[in-house]
Amino acid sequence: MAASASSLLAAAASSSCAAISPRIPRGAPAAASVPSPSHHSCPSLRASPARRHQSRFVASVAPTMQPPAESRVSTVVDVDLGDRSYPIYIGAGLLDEPDLLQRHVHGKRVLVVTNTTVAPLYLEKVTWALTHNNRNVSVESVILPDGEKYKDMDTLMKVFDKAVESRLDRRCTFVALGGGVIGDMCGFAAAAFLRGVNFIQIPTTLMAQVDSSVGGKTGINHPLGKNLIGAFYQPQCVLIDTDTLNTLPDRELASGIAEVVKYGLIRDAPFFEWQEKNMSALLAREPSALAYAIKRSCENKAEVVAQDEKESGLRATLNLGHTFGHAIETGLGYGAWFHGEAIAAGTVMAADMSHRLGWIDESIKKRVVDILEEAKLPITPPETMTVEKFKSIIALRFYWGIRQEST
Amino acid sequence: MAASASSLLAAAASSSCAAISPRIPRGAPAAASVPSPSHHSCPSLRASPARRHQSRFVASVAPTMQPPAESRVSTVVDVDLGDRSYPIYIGAGLLDEPDLLQRHVHGKRVLVVTNTTVAPLYLEKVTWALTHNNRNVSVESVILPDGEKYKDMDTLMKVFDKAVESRLDRRCTFVALGGGVIGDMCGFAAAAFLRGVNFIQIPTTLMAQVDSSVGGKTGINHPLGKNLIGAFYQPQCVLIDTDTLNTLPDRELASGIAEVVKYGLIRDAPFFEWQEKNMSALLAREPSALAYAIKRSCENKAEVVAQDEKESGLRATLNLGHTFGHAIETGLGYGAWFHGEAIAAGTVMAADMSHRLGWIDESIKKRVVDILEEAKLPITPPETMTVEKFKSIIALRFYWGIRQEST
Repeated sequence: MAASASSLLAAAASSSCAAISPRIPRGAPAAASVPSPSHHSCPSLRASPARRHQSRFVASVAPTMQPPAESRVSTVVDVDLGDRSYPIYIGAGLLDEPDLLQRHVHGKRVLVVTNTTVAPLYLEKVTWALTHNNRNVSVESVILPDGEKYKDMDTLMKVFDKAVESRLDRRCTFVALGGGVIGDMCGFAAAAFLRGVNFIQIPTTLMAQVDSSVGGKTGINHPLGKNLIGAFYQPQCVLIDTDTLNTLPDRELASGIAEVVKYGLIRDAPFFEWQEKNMSALLAREPSALAYAIKRSCENKAEVVAQDEKESGLRATLNLGHTFGHAIETGLGYGAWFHGEAIAAGTVMAADMSHRLGWIDESIKKRVVDILEEAKLPITPPETMTVEKFKSIIALRFYWGIRQEST
Repeated sequence: MAASASSLLAAAASSSCAAISPRIPRGAPAAASVPSPSHHSCPSLRASPARRHQSRFVASVAPTMQPPAESRVSTVVDVDLGDRSYPIYIGAGLLDEPDLLQRHVHGKRVLVVTNTTVAPLYLEKVTWALTHNNRNVSVESVILPDGEKYKDMDTLMKVFDKAVESRLDRRCTFVALGGGVIGDMCGFAAAAFLRGVNFIQIPTTLMAQVDSSVGGKTGINHPLGKNLIGAFYQPQCVLIDTDTLNTLPDRELASGIAEVVKYGLIRDAPFFEWQEKNMSALLAREPSALAYAIKRSCENKAEVVAQDEKESGLRATLNLGHTFGHAIETGLGYGAWFHGEAIAAGTVMAADMSHRLGWIDESIKKRVVDILEEAKLPITPPETMTVEKFKSIIALRFYWGIRQEST
């Protein structure tokens, strides 16, 4: 028997991140349209009453570190962490602008960490961007096998091996080129190599662009659990070239959308409404729609991380759907479902639970199901995930106190 | 042919940490005696003109975190690093005072990391100190093989394995019980487990007490170099029970004295003079002499670290003798000589080089040789270390830019 959320109330009721509080305004006026990429924020959203209500959440647009006037950067989101603050550049064709990348490279030696899927697509382009009109910089690269199952100590050692064999020193820069696994591994390698060198994130999946590349969580898996070994370590910048999404398979695009939806649900009702109006544009990969969705996602995550970098409280809200979702990933074995697919089903379970607890009404639950369904994401857990399986996996994570990991 | 320092001038001249600047006052009045352990600093040293000249270097004795009145703690040295500040407790019998340790334990779960040599001597005592009149705390332990050659990723994974299998959560505390290798590995494991948990240092060798346990450098070796993978990570406290030195072999005691001598040479002339008067007391393990030597060493290191936590400049002065010393360790293979033995020979080479460069006169060089000889430390490199061997090893470290590692 597949589990229903109600069966799991006892196991999950103590999780602050498993359920939805009633923040979505019912019947709020339609407030959004696909914004122009030439604006740093969406004027139509700003003008709506609901938007003004949310304005305290709007991330600052960085006053410094702005791209040059001719740049195609549509947005810069600033992650405000004191002396560890950094910009997130978002736009189409950013890898065609060497200056943008080069201004954040420290020293003359760069190690690009990527994988067998991404290297044939973008390694040459990134190497060009790092070295164009810049003969002082030399670039090494290490190409790891692709997949969550390689997010382990043995694969991490390949990064250290390459760095040591290349005799990189403390003034080098590591560049993460790929999805979330590459970003997490490269970030942890940068945190630990010579006790810390600079690094740059170039996420190439929507999931990495809206979630894992922002916030400084890095690490690897232990055979007994995800992300148990790592560091909080912030990059010099995150460079999101939305053109890289053109090579992303549909299933992976949808997986990233699950996290985009999450931001709307936990803290940004106007953004959720915008998604309801623009899901078809996102699925059709309209550049301006993608850029806006990434921008608002990064702003939301940046705001939360700035208030709670090391997850003492607020940051746990980013884990909506992750209690059930992680259980699905663990139960199926990593790689069977994409992370976002598990989170989508987990979010529906959380919405169902919230409804049964009387925290949200039926209409909100329906909107959650509808938007995820439109994104072609799973809205029920896999048949093999029985109530007992959910219970045992979630109980283990609660015992560990690490249910909030991996966001 | 064994190398002389003069042969190495060309290779090492650019190293700021290889040579001695003329800070030792010649013919300064004898200013020191073995201090009473009931004082937080040495009154006779304070009263000397030379001491006043050095007073700006004196570390603050922590106004808070003082031990209870009945405590046998003779000294608390405060490492001032803002919100990462912590106390170093120094005294005889501190492991017989459960309160001292327990006040720094966060959460209810403790993992003691130790090795096969130290565990039979002190693990039971430390476990008692952690749990006496404190039934809420449970203690796990992991006993690693002893020696520098085990300071690697495979052995580090045993710490993570134990922590994960024991289902420790973010509120646990790691305790490093042993020498420098244990402290470095336990500290890095604490930095990386669940992206950072609390840890406490209980160093049981003089080398660890005066050097490696203070300052937050943690890490492991890569097959191609020492300490290439790690973190800057500060403990909750360092607890130095000088009674643990009673089980330390003579050679290891002398090895630690090499670093004690270093502090005198680089920044504390009165302390150096005190050592000249009291070396026989140190070698005879007189508790008050050991406690004073450890205190002044920790104060000196704490002052340097507080000014330059991540070694952008000043901290490199702590590496006097280490350019040549590391070359000896690398050339002989780790474990053939103790670290302090290599540093002693390296310090004499640095003094010789400084003399040849005209930076210090013959009498100072002689005092360096005399004090290290009295401590029964090597004052020449091993015969097998030829000029060519020194040159190639030092050149490689310079190329890497990591010549300042491992202090």
